[in-house]
Formats: sequence, C-alpha cells, structure tokens
Amino acid sequence: MKATLFSLFALSVAARPLPSPGEKPTDVRNIIMMVSDGFGPASETFARAYVQQSDRFPMNYMSFLDELLIGSSRTRSSDSFVTDSAAGAVAFASARKTYNNGIGVDDNVKPIGTNMEGAHRLGYKTGLVVKSFITDATPAAFAAHVATRQMMDLIAEQMGGLTDLGQNVDLMFGGGRCQFIRNSTKGSCRTDDKDVWGEMGKKGWTLMSTNDEFKALTASPKLPLMGLFGLDDVPYTIDYKISDVPTLPQMAKKAIDILAEASKDSEQGFFMMIEGSRIDHAGHENDAGAHFREIVEYWETIKLVSDYIDEHPDTVMVSTSDHETGGLGLGRNNQYWVYPLVYANQTMSQQVSCANLFKLPMKNRCQYVTEVMFPIHFGLSNVTRAKVSSVLKATNQDNCLLAISEALAIDANIMWTTFGHTGVDVNIYAKGKHTEELAGNHENTDIGMWLSKMLGVDLKKATERVKDINVFQYPYIKDSSTYVFTPSLDYYHK
Amino acid sequence: MKATLFSLFALSVAARPLPSPGEKPTDVRNIIMMVSDGFGPASETFARAYVQQSDRFPMNYMSFLDELLIGSSRTRSSDSFVTDSAAGAVAFASARKTYNNGIGVDDNVKPIGTNMEGAHRLGYKTGLVVKSFITDATPAAFAAHVATRQMMDLIAEQMGGLTDLGQNVDLMFGGGRCQFIRNSTKGSCRTDDKDVWGEMGKKGWTLMSTNDEFKALTASPKLPLMGLFGLDDVPYTIDYKISDVPTLPQMAKKAIDILAEASKDSEQGFFMMIEGSRIDHAGHENDAGAHFREIVEYWETIKLVSDYIDEHPDTVMVSTSDHETGGLGLGRNNQYWVYPLVYANQTMSQQVSCANLFKLPMKNRCQYVTEVMFPIHFGLSNVTRAKVSSVLKATNQDNCLLAISEALAIDANIMWTTFGHTGVDVNIYAKGKHTEELAGNHENTDIGMWLSKMLGVDLKKATERVKDINVFQYPYIKDSSTYVFTPSLDYYHK
Repeated sequence: MKATLFSLFALSVAARPLPSPGEKPTDVRNIIMMVSDGFGPASETFARAYVQQSDRFPMNYMSFLDELLIGSSRTRSSDSFVTDSAAGAVAFASARKTYNNGIGVDDNVKPIGTNMEGAHRLGYKTGLVVKSFITDATPAAFAAHVATRQMMDLIAEQMGGLTDLGQNVDLMFGGGRCQFIRNSTKGSCRTDDKDVWGEMGKKGWTLMSTNDEFKALTASPKLPLMGLFGLDDVPYTIDYKISDVPTLPQMAKKAIDILAEASKDSEQGFFMMIEGSRIDHAGHENDAGAHFREIVEYWETIKLVSDYIDEHPDTVMVSTSDHETGGLGLGRNNQYWVYPLVYANQTMSQQVSCANLFKLPMKNRCQYVTEVMFPIHFGLSNVTRAKVSSVLKATNQDNCLLAISEALAIDANIMWTTFGHTGVDVNIYAKGKHTEELAGNHENTDIGMWLSKMLGVDLKKATERVKDINVFQYPYIKDSSTYVFTPSLDYYHK
Repeated sequence: MKATLFSLFALSVAARPLPSPGEKPTDVRNIIMMVSDGFGPASETFARAYVQQSDRFPMNYMSFLDELLIGSSRTRSSDSFVTDSAAGAVAFASARKTYNNGIGVDDNVKPIGTNMEGAHRLGYKTGLVVKSFITDATPAAFAAHVATRQMMDLIAEQMGGLTDLGQNVDLMFGGGRCQFIRNSTKGSCRTDDKDVWGEMGKKGWTLMSTNDEFKALTASPKLPLMGLFGLDDVPYTIDYKISDVPTLPQMAKKAIDILAEASKDSEQGFFMMIEGSRIDHAGHENDAGAHFREIVEYWETIKLVSDYIDEHPDTVMVSTSDHETGGLGLGRNNQYWVYPLVYANQTMSQQVSCANLFKLPMKNRCQYVTEVMFPIHFGLSNVTRAKVSSVLKATNQDNCLLAISEALAIDANIMWTTFGHTGVDVNIYAKGKHTEELAGNHENTDIGMWLSKMLGVDLKKATERVKDINVFQYPYIKDSSTYVFTPSLDYYHK
C-alpha cells in the first residue's frame, strides 16, 4: 500500500513551509486572539442545533461564529498527535510546535519569546482575559516560560512581573487567585509561603477580586491591572448564580475599553488574548449542558469583539481552538436523530452537582440524587432506577460525572469518546483586514506566525531576550536532568 | 436561559435565505460535483495522520484535499437533525431539503426536478460515477424520483431511461448490476422478472460489466453508456485484489474523458457527480482501516479532477459530504495519543473477513480467527484471548464487525460512537472559478443552488417537467396512503 498508493503523493504534495511573517501591515492597530479551548466542529454544530431548536429559529439558522468561518487548524504538538493546551497555546503565542505541557519553551525545553512579550516591548498595551486560572496553560503560554504547566507557582510570579522576565501583561482578568496567596492563607494553592499578590501590589499593580470592584472600574484605571474573581476557576455560565462574578463578555468588553483607552495616544494599539476556557472543562467532564452554554457565551464574546471591529476597522480578530475535548459524537446506537433539548432544563453543572453529592453523608445521597440532582439540576423526572443506581454507585467525582453524562447523553442520542482531548482539526474563524491569509487548512503555528506579522513582532528577537530565563522550579523539577519528556517525533516514525 | 441569553441573537442573527441561483457565468463550461459519502472532519484528520506517519512526511503534511478547503456544510434533513444519504443528496441534486429516504421528491413526496435533468435538457453531457449500487441514494437523487430509496427496482428503470422520465444520464459507472437483471437470473436482487439490462440494450445503451470491457473503452464510445462492475458494490480499495474491477480514479478519469469528448462540439460541456461511496460503508462498519483507504482513493480522484481543471480552467469542482458516518473520535480513555499505524498491516475489510468467518462451519472458526483473521487480515499478532473470544462470540455480521473494530481501535486509541450517521458539519472543498461563493459555513442546499447557477439550470422548470411522475411502487408502497413519514419540523419544535 505504502509504495503503490502513497508514492504519488510524496512527490506532488510538498508540505507547506511555515509562512514568513512578512512586513507588519500599516492598516492594523489592534489585534485580538480568541481561543475557544476544547471546542471542536461537533461542539459548534451541537450548540447551534440547541439554539435553533430552543428558540425555534429557522432550520438554516447560523451562529455569529458560523458567519466568520474561514478554515481549519491542525492541532498536533511536537510529541503527540493529540495536543494538550500548553503546546496548543505555544503554537499561537510563539508560532512554534512544542511538547505537551511545555509553556513558553521549545522542544528542547529552551525558552522562546512570545508575541505578547514582543508586542509589549514594541509599546502595545497587552491583556489576557480567561475563565480558568490566569496561570493555566493557555494564558501562561503568552507570558511565562516553564518546563511544565504544573509549575503554576513560578508561572504566577512570572506573569506578575516579579522575575527577570519583567512585566509583559498590562491587564489580566480571570480566576485562580489561590496561586497568588501564601500557602498559610486559607484557600491558597501555592506550595510556598510567597505573597505574590502583595508583592505585585508593591510593584504598582492595581489588584481586585470582587465583582463590585470590577463594576466600579472606569475606562482608565491605573495599569498594570489584575482582577481574579475567584480562588479557583470563574464558574461555568450555568453556575453563575452561585457566585457574584463578571461574565466572559463583561470581562472582555471592559478589557478592550481599558486597553483601547490606555493606548489611544501611543503609536501602537493593543494585543489581547481572550479565552473561552471552560468550553474545555465541560468537555473534560462530558457535560454537554454546561459545554454548549459556555459556547453560547463565547458567541456573545465574539459578537462584541465583532461589533468593536465594525467601529474600529483597524482591529483584527482570529478565533480558533487549541484542540477538541471529549470527542463528542452527534449520533449513537445507529439512530438517526439527536435531541439537544434534553439539556434545556439543566440548571447546574455536573461538576458542582457531583461535588455537592460527595459532601453529603451516605444516608442522604439517594434522596439527593432522586429529588434534587436529576429533577432539579438536570431537569429529568421519572428517571430510571438504573440511572439513579449508576450515580449512587459512583465512588468518586469522575464516576459521578460519567454516570450523569451518560444518563443525559443516551436521551439526547449523543456520545463522548474520552474525558481527554482529541486530534480532530478545529475551525478557524476571523474578522478584519488580512484575515484572508488564514483561509483554508493550516498548521496551528501559522496562526502564531500571522499574529507576529500583524503585530510586527520579531520572534527571534523576543527569544533572544528570554533565552536565559530559568524554566525549572523546585519542588516540581529542579533541572532538566530530573525531567523526562519526549521531545521528538520518533514515536510516529517507528 | 432561553429568554435572557438567546433573545439577543433572535434579532441580530437572521437566518440566511437560500441564495438566488443568479445568472450562469459565461466562463464555466464543465461542472463536477464530488461527494465523499459519510466523510466527516475527523476522518480527514485521521487519514492525513496515517499517511504522514506511514510515509514519514513532515509534521505539517497536507493532503490534496486539505489544499482545497474553503468551508463547511450543515447537513440536516427536513425531518431529522441527522440526515440519511437520500435527503443529503437531494440537497445537492435539487437544492431542497427533504425527508430521510426521499429521492427526487420534496417534503410532501412530490417530485422535484434535479440539476442533472435540467442540465441534460440544456444539452450538457451528464455522468454518474460511484462505487456503490448505481441505484443507491446518492446517485439516484440526481436522476430518479421515488418516495423511498428502498424502491431500487423503480430507480433502476428510471435511471435506465425506461420510464416517462426519459433518459437523463449519458454515462454511469458503478456497481449494483443485480438491480438490472430479472429475478429468475442468478444473483439478481430485483423483486420482479423485468430484464432492465436487456431493455436498456434495446433502447441503444452501451452496456458493460467487466474490467476488460472498461479497459477497452475508447474516448468516444457510443452513448448512453453504463458500466456496472459487480452485482453488488464495487469492492473496497483494500479488497480490490479479490476481483478485477476499475478503481474510482480510473472510472472518474475515463468518464471525464468520454464526456469531454462527447461534448466538445456542443454549446454546453458536461456535468458529473463522482462519489467516494464506500467511505460511508466503512464508517457504518466502524472499519477504520478500510475507511481511510477509501479516503486516500478519494484524494487520488480529487487530484485527477484538480489536474483536469488546471488544464481546463472552464471546469469547476465542489467536493463535500452528505454527512459524517460512525462518529469517529480521535481520542479515548483520557489518553493523549492516537496511533493510526495500527491499521498499517490490515489487508482485508472487516466486512469481507467477517463474512468469510460465517461461511465456515463452527468447528473451524477458532482457527480462522487466530491464524487468519487477526494475523493476516488485520496484522495483529499475539492478540489477547479476550479479543479472540469477542469475535468468536459474535453471532451475526454486526457483532463480528464491532468485535474486530474494537480490537483495533483500542490499540489505535480511537473510538466510534455509532454504526449510523451523525449530525456534525462536514467540510467543503472546491477548485475553479466562482467557488469562492461557497466559502464559509453553508446549508447543504446552498451547494445545490450553486450547481444550478453554474449550470444555468432553472430548477422550477425542471420540476414542472417531472411533477406528474409516479414516485410510488408496488410491492414497497402502492401510493401515499400506505406510506407513513414525518415531513415536518415539529419534532424539533416540541
């Protein structure tokens, strides 16, 4: 087969080289990178079908995002066909393939400069807006350099401008405040007693942690500014009611206004990364109801960015995913239908509902499952004994998630293939000048290269500046001799 | 949720109306519609990964098809979110949504004209090239009108030009000769004793059934011409060795040459539909090894069409799928890798291998499974007792397919969600003038509308010509009173 069938391709289909970034276009001032983490083609189809059916829109209804489709992205990392979010984000942040878990480093664990660092040096105002920990892989890849994404203690210090890297981000909104407070403080997730929050304050950061503070923000607060609206992740859209936090569109809108105002008199504009972080989390939990609501919130965010571009045609936006999460299949059991409205009456994420289950004493769990969980959280009445039993048998969070997920998915006729990521190509959406360069099928690094061009960032120069940064950290990994990884493609060439 | 979150979309995202076909462009002469039946986004990613790894191509390798990506298609039918191939093909053939199983009819089971019929009336030479039965849903939708796709007896007569419809196709290559020979003949699959093959011969058709006859074809045989290279489907690429048949690219190339020659002195050029029919069949059988080899053969076919367009820039081509089949997930079990080379040593389709198993007496099956099936057909040595046992426990073809599929998929770390179709959007690829009109996300009917425009076909006029055709047939369905279907969208609006 190999010799006979594929040989003709070998000669005629040369792999496309990475594009040279080229000259920065003079008609582009502001650049917005949007990342829909863990969002594959089936997730868009599913979310669209839900909204079309729920709101009785015409059969040919399209989401805002659909209107902006221009191509697709190949997502693999340097050491696996299935990327993680770290390597996925490095492709955008630094236009380079790296190994899974690597943040701001190349395949040899050497620091590489990022578009955000380069942009900041050039005078752009820079921002990161996410719903995950601000130190999580996607945002970290734009402004940190560590051997593995687990080194969040060091990531926090780097992103906070407390290390030799200096300060590269002017505005951060998201979650994960636990990473910034000393481990003697209640709720901390640091391994050391460093008061990063306090040190950032001393360095001049404007810091905030409540929605009231967020709401009180003017268009020109003192920068740098960081608002972390939770010790943990910002809640799922479906769980917003359980805590008072700004939503993703609210954070994105405020960030755009602040960065636009801050850069209005300078030669350069702003560069932001906005992430629909928890589309991915809901995929990991196979929680279709939480998943599509995160997607719809992402559409809203896309809409406001799109409106901004209509008013400011010197702003460009590209939106893509680092990978798909969950392997959502829109059909199962040889049945030719899918019924997304099964999720219409879901009122809580599986994550929160299951976590609440395990807080209860054993004797109260059956009642919780039959009287609260299924009917109130998931809108299922007359649930079968088998479904109840599968939840009650769960001895940990994962088994509970799987039991609930299946109970609903079987009614909707959908099916997930994994709690992890998959390798399917993801869609590219874009708006603004020069985005036609991203039309068609692309390597994910092409998007990072395009950002470099729009920004006028020389990534080689950016790398020169960071090449001596220490990317190892105790207690995780002291140096490269204690770190085992697979930096080559040999696995796929055996 | 509905009122608060989605209401903003209701006003601002009006569903796009179907485009008016508009005036036929004067710079387009030949139109080729390519259908990759049952081919979703994950299948392209998987086939590409296999070839990249198998041939040690660079990490950023792209297939021919990848180079032509321009958008995606929403695939639902009028009565289900998950279409079948009949309704899927009607969208291309007649630019209309219809119910699952409907062929050349609208949602009220009324005949509607097709692009192929309209083109033939205008003087185009027309052709259908497939690997399935020529009377199967996709080709049938271009040249037949029946209430359900199961009425293949009538479809054969209509496509053969033996009914009031007249002759609308000048050339057909494919399989399914059993549908054209009387039921008293060995191998027939007709329910009646009509000799359709003989009657077509009397009407002047050039008929052939062997590869020798195919090879002997000149560029200007007498038309109309039909070559059916098997009583059943044309074999899978992986099974070509078991019978002497022309391949899909061979049939496509010959058909193009013949139709180009036949139309060279006329005002109009040619219109063809070429289908990678069995990509779908392998998806139905969850046979990844057969599946990606059908895809690679489809790439080869795309390549030759692409080469033809390079030499004949008045030819345009669009390639898309009617739907995804199988719900292929490129990841399972929370593992971040996929290993397509598991399928490298597969030498036979699951379909044929399993069928052979059931031909054996019970006492010989264990030896067949351990000594032939796993090691020789699927390249797996030292296979586990559990895998052998799961095949031996299979009491029918479906269970055997599932057992083999799982035995391989678990090693490759992929997973299928169904033996049927799914609702995920499928990719649109295109080459030639005016194909930019299909860029972005589209309803599948937009592709049919675009074909009408390229052809200059007035589908209303085409419908007027066929409106009195009888679409019912004994013994399946005598008339509409005995036929139950769900023609409305009410299901999705409950």
